Amino acid sequence: MTNEDDMLVTPWEVKGTIDYDRLIEEFGTERIDEKLRKKIEKIAGESHILLDRELFFSHRDLDWVMKEYEKGNKFILYTGRGPSGDVHIGHLVPWMFTKWMQDCFKVPLYFQLTNDEKFWFDQDMTYEQVHELTRDNALDVIATGFDPEKTFILDDIKHIDLMYELAVKVAKKVTFSTARAVFGFENSMNIGGIFYPSMQAVPAFLHSWIHERKTPCIIPCAIDQDPYWRITRDVAEKLGYYKPASIQNKFVPGLQEGGKMSSSDPMSAIYTTDSPKKAKKKVLAAFTGGRTTAKEQRELGANPEICSVFKYYTFIFMPDDKELADIRMKCVSGDILCGACKQILVPRMMEFLEKHQAAREEAKERLHEFSADKLRNLVRK
Amino acid sequence: MTNEDDMLVTPWEVKGTIDYDRLIEEFGTERIDEKLRKKIEKIAGESHILLDRELFFSHRDLDWVMKEYEKGNKFILYTGRGPSGDVHIGHLVPWMFTKWMQDCFKVPLYFQLTNDEKFWFDQDMTYEQVHELTRDNALDVIATGFDPEKTFILDDIKHIDLMYELAVKVAKKVTFSTARAVFGFENSMNIGGIFYPSMQAVPAFLHSWIHERKTPCIIPCAIDQDPYWRITRDVAEKLGYYKPASIQNKFVPGLQEGGKMSSSDPMSAIYTTDSPKKAKKKVLAAFTGGRTTAKEQRELGANPEICSVFKYYTFIFMPDDKELADIRMKCVSGDILCGACKQILVPRMMEFLEKHQAAREEAKERLHEFSADKLRNLVRK
Repeated sequence: MTNEDDMLVTPWEVKGTIDYDRLIEEFGTERIDEKLRKKIEKIAGESHILLDRELFFSHRDLDWVMKEYEKGNKFILYTGRGPSGDVHIGHLVPWMFTKWMQDCFKVPLYFQLTNDEKFWFDQDMTYEQVHELTRDNALDVIATGFDPEKTFILDDIKHIDLMYELAVKVAKKVTFSTARAVFGFENSMNIGGIFYPSMQAVPAFLHSWIHERKTPCIIPCAIDQDPYWRITRDVAEKLGYYKPASIQNKFVPGLQEGGKMSSSDPMSAIYTTDSPKKAKKKVLAAFTGGRTTAKEQRELGANPEICSVFKYYTFIFMPDDKELADIRMKCVSGDILCGACKQILVPRMMEFLEKHQAAREEAKERLHEFSADKLRNLVRK
Repeated sequence: MTNEDDMLVTPWEVKGTIDYDRLIEEFGTERIDEKLRKKIEKIAGESHILLDRELFFSHRDLDWVMKEYEKGNKFILYTGRGPSGDVHIGHLVPWMFTKWMQDCFKVPLYFQLTNDEKFWFDQDMTYEQVHELTRDNALDVIATGFDPEKTFILDDIKHIDLMYELAVKVAKKVTFSTARAVFGFENSMNIGGIFYPSMQAVPAFLHSWIHERKTPCIIPCAIDQDPYWRITRDVAEKLGYYKPASIQNKFVPGLQEGGKMSSSDPMSAIYTTDSPKKAKKKVLAAFTGGRTTAKEQRELGANPEICSVFKYYTFIFMPDDKELADIRMKCVSGDILCGACKQILVPRMMEFLEKHQAAREEAKERLHEFSADKLRNLVRK
């Protein structure tokens, strides 16, 4: 999906200036309006900054799932991660929102680690690497704080016994023509990559399949994954399941100018395994909306709209709306310089990392508690 | 693969007059010559009519595997069946040969039931049907008399936990271009069918993977499966395994004129579940090389080359070479008419079926003995 600005949003690449209105139009999703937002927060019993600040901004069928929930028909949550490298803070944003939903709605979460995908789509990725990354990334998932009794981490390769029957059924309903039209596959794509969309569809139906009861599903994720849900929604009713709903967030910006936080540029991202000291360095080196000189900035003010530090406040680190409005005002008025502003983020970021890393360390002993292994005794043989 | 005679030989369709010399040339396999035949029979300690009569006629690397065997490096056998319908006598021919090889060489056999393939390649096949056929076809495999301790029946869907890691590794090495060039996939092919060649490659490497020791593999099969082995051989060394060898048989003819015994034409095939009475009827209605009138046949003789009954003698029912030569002489000289000749086949066919059906009945209690389930405790987790 491109436009004149060279905006490109695919499951594999996001670049250019992102125009979210265009994405909604071109992907054919719906904006989360005030009415839907209020409804979600009413049922949830509380609000969430990512909704209030319109960082989760787009959806499919979320209104329908909320209506079903009010009728007593619970949904399941499904999200995932391609273990292509270390997890960074940008990845955690939709996970934290997913945890909030799990806590408020008391629903199961299927969390897919798509190691087959990452092995197939990255020529240089070895099997051993992707296996190691799968385990490693699972630690970050667990550290996010999900409910172990209601959370099922699916490792595509390890849990293929739980997933293949559904993948086989999905695959039969998707022609190469369709997959190519949706994903733009080249002839040089390997036959695993072409099959892969079947695997990403599976967790949307897995609960319904295991419990033999059609269950609504909400997929919180970044909007670049939407092509997969188009395929998934397309086959859902043919297989006797509900079309999964989705709720889609904006990209978490990188610390450098433009683009999303990206694993491929280490300085653009703060990894969950970065030492707090290293994270501090990255924050201090981050791109801001500041002026060339302090004098100029005091006179003219800075631009929070393009500032990565301000975006971090917005996404995670300044949940208090009043505090956020204050800092914004100080920024545009020139009352605060970027260095001082960063000094507010630094301790918050360091504390966040310390807590996450402690939880991550604990998670090493808790992998089995969260593993989809525990689904096995529910599955018909 | 077609020629001027409209000979067509693909994994999905075989038609026209089969020119085996051309198949060897076009597929790039090698003829099993006298020297290789003698060598196999020497190591095996006995001869086999399917080799002697050149019904197994073509191979890849079989000479190399025999040399390795002589050095003490044993091989494994791998063959399979797509459970698309009931098993007929034509299917049993390579299985009987495979059993002979297992008995003589005392080697493991991996027998793949490709239910994912048949589900993907047949639009009308339901999941329940293919599941039922898998179980049902396994009975025929077991009834063939394999050694339960050395035989591992792989049900692609049920045993995907044993197979997916290898399939994922194979899939990464096969581009869509290659798969399309080898199999002629259309854009309307579903994405399961495109992935499937990875699954058919797996059993060639499974023993090596489980035991972490490169092990030679021989695949006895009809020559129409050769495209799959080209893919498999192409990836083998990239994955650190030996290229599988193969030994390929001619098609078992149908009871009607031309073509191979086919599941899609019930009168052309004798199913293992046909009552002996029904089989008798089919034999009596079979196409022969006889003349229009008895008088003419007595004067001019008949043509065993195009006679389905004679081919049955050759493939299975007349293992004694002298007896076969006698009947052939009587046929061409007009000393025996087709009706009388069929009366020799009828009791043999009926007895064969009775025995097979008794073994098939017993097999219902023995499915677990032959199942690849027993590989699970050998597999690294």
